Amino acid sequence: MKEKEINNSFIERLIKNDRRTVARSISIVESNNSRSSELLKEVYAKVGNAYRIGITGPPGAGKSTMTNQLTKLFRNQNKKVGIIAVDPTSPFTGGALLGDRIRMSEIGQDTGVFIRSMATRGSLGGLSKKANDAADILDVAGYDYIIMETVGVGQSELDIAEAADTTIVVLVPESGDAVQAMKAGLMEIADFFVVNKSDRPGSEQALSALKTILSMKEHNVNSWMPNIISAIANENKGILDIVAEIQRHKDYLLSSNKFIEQREHRTKIRIKEIVEDKLRYLLWNESRKNSLNSTLDKVILGNLSPYHIAEEIIDNFKNQL
Amino acid sequence: MKEKEINNSFIERLIKNDRRTVARSISIVESNNSRSSELLKEVYAKVGNAYRIGITGPPGAGKSTMTNQLTKLFRNQNKKVGIIAVDPTSPFTGGALLGDRIRMSEIGQDTGVFIRSMATRGSLGGLSKKANDAADILDVAGYDYIIMETVGVGQSELDIAEAADTTIVVLVPESGDAVQAMKAGLMEIADFFVVNKSDRPGSEQALSALKTILSMKEHNVNSWMPNIISAIANENKGILDIVAEIQRHKDYLLSSNKFIEQREHRTKIRIKEIVEDKLRYLLWNESRKNSLNSTLDKVILGNLSPYHIAEEIIDNFKNQL
Repeated sequence: MKEKEINNSFIERLIKNDRRTVARSISIVESNNSRSSELLKEVYAKVGNAYRIGITGPPGAGKSTMTNQLTKLFRNQNKKVGIIAVDPTSPFTGGALLGDRIRMSEIGQDTGVFIRSMATRGSLGGLSKKANDAADILDVAGYDYIIMETVGVGQSELDIAEAADTTIVVLVPESGDAVQAMKAGLMEIADFFVVNKSDRPGSEQALSALKTILSMKEHNVNSWMPNIISAIANENKGILDIVAEIQRHKDYLLSSNKFIEQREHRTKIRIKEIVEDKLRYLLWNESRKNSLNSTLDKVILGNLSPYHIAEEIIDNFKNQL
Repeated sequence: MKEKEINNSFIERLIKNDRRTVARSISIVESNNSRSSELLKEVYAKVGNAYRIGITGPPGAGKSTMTNQLTKLFRNQNKKVGIIAVDPTSPFTGGALLGDRIRMSEIGQDTGVFIRSMATRGSLGGLSKKANDAADILDVAGYDYIIMETVGVGQSELDIAEAADTTIVVLVPESGDAVQAMKAGLMEIADFFVVNKSDRPGSEQALSALKTILSMKEHNVNSWMPNIISAIANENKGILDIVAEIQRHKDYLLSSNKFIEQREHRTKIRIKEIVEDKLRYLLWNESRKNSLNSTLDKVILGNLSPYHIAEEIIDNFKNQL
């Protein structure tokens, strides 16, 4: 049965947003094997209608709450929303599961919303590939907005920015996040900032610090200048402003040809990842894995360097291809 | 001049721990080009004498302070210490630079200590490869202990554990780190735990929580059981216990053949990384880069999937190799 799973009826059910088929399809693309590329090839002509929003920020900034509120607002506009919660699973940041639980109770029963968590720790093939693939599935299934949410640790926030049309960086007033974010180059990925929990002390200072740093950024009249939105997501304050800013950024992208440029850039990265994955698969066949294992003791004894062994393996690969 | 840089006299100066040559050598291996493999091939027979210690934990756990104290103690034993501070450069965790500044003033003037920071954000080729290569250079230069320190975000702590003979996970009493660490699988990488700042409230509870969770781990009389050490690194308390525990773990590794097993495993991962790096380099020559760029619009228009383009590129690569 498994060989035949991806047939016309499966694709049809996916396009019609049958929930079990959508879930199954994401599992297939997450598995990253030959059936994954089979499925994505099959549906690719249908990809491209969804608008992709990336949300990142430090732990506790209220990203999940904001995603919830945005989702409810989009649902009121009768738009379907797919949510991909990327958990880079740092051992020292948690919260993803909690966020999911909250969401499940509030919006999880709505068939116009699809929520998927992706853990990425130690995964082969980058996060951006998996998030992109899952977003493609939701795109094909007819979701209008795809929100990709991740805590900014490691480099998951860079991957998310690569995969999104509009990237939102969420900060909180305290803890010097603003300045920290600037230093770390988040200015480069943020299409706009949200200062959440803006009723907290220090909010005015955080806003003006952000504004000052942003104003130092070089720009001309035609380039996009990231705005700063104040919000209190858990009181539903500022959510309309955020949606308006997403729309303003989308309009800018479409009118300036940046929309196509960004999507071409994303496509390029994806193709590279697919090619490299496939080559790795061809490379590490049983025979080469075995010959690698059998040479390890020579390296440990210092008779050969890893670089010598690597050259032998590459020569062998060249001859086989 | 540049072509001739890595000659016999250069290697000799590296082996004699000439500081400028050591620094230059690490820069060469960080650059990850052909001269990097030339250098590592040249010196590889001299690698293998240093003992490699990995230190990881959440931001603010006192990893840098602990590294400082361990270094001073090793120096009193007349051992040379190389320190590789790996900064995964999360935008929301800082501190690495500060840690370096503290170290520079206390131990930075000592010629028996070599300190190097490595930023890894967005780097090609994994962190573990770079950290391993830099550790090899320090090994060749005669450093007895190499301490690799990283904040546990993303998956830098997994990479460090791969590269180390003994891995220490540093926690603090508050914030539920202990339970969090257990959940996130840090139990698998920790050869022992240090509960630092153990004069703080909650220390007893944190210790007993850790002990309870560890006691549930399956083990037999011959397997290694991670211990828990209490310390107050900035008052130099517990540092002798840490050194004793490192020695106990080293003795265990040597007596159980695990030492060789671990180093073989590490070598295997390194060879794989070297092979894949080299193939990536061969793959993305100018001609294939250009042909990739020229097909992007077809994907955007939905005429071809990234998977189709990827297959064409692989076929082309096969024919060229």
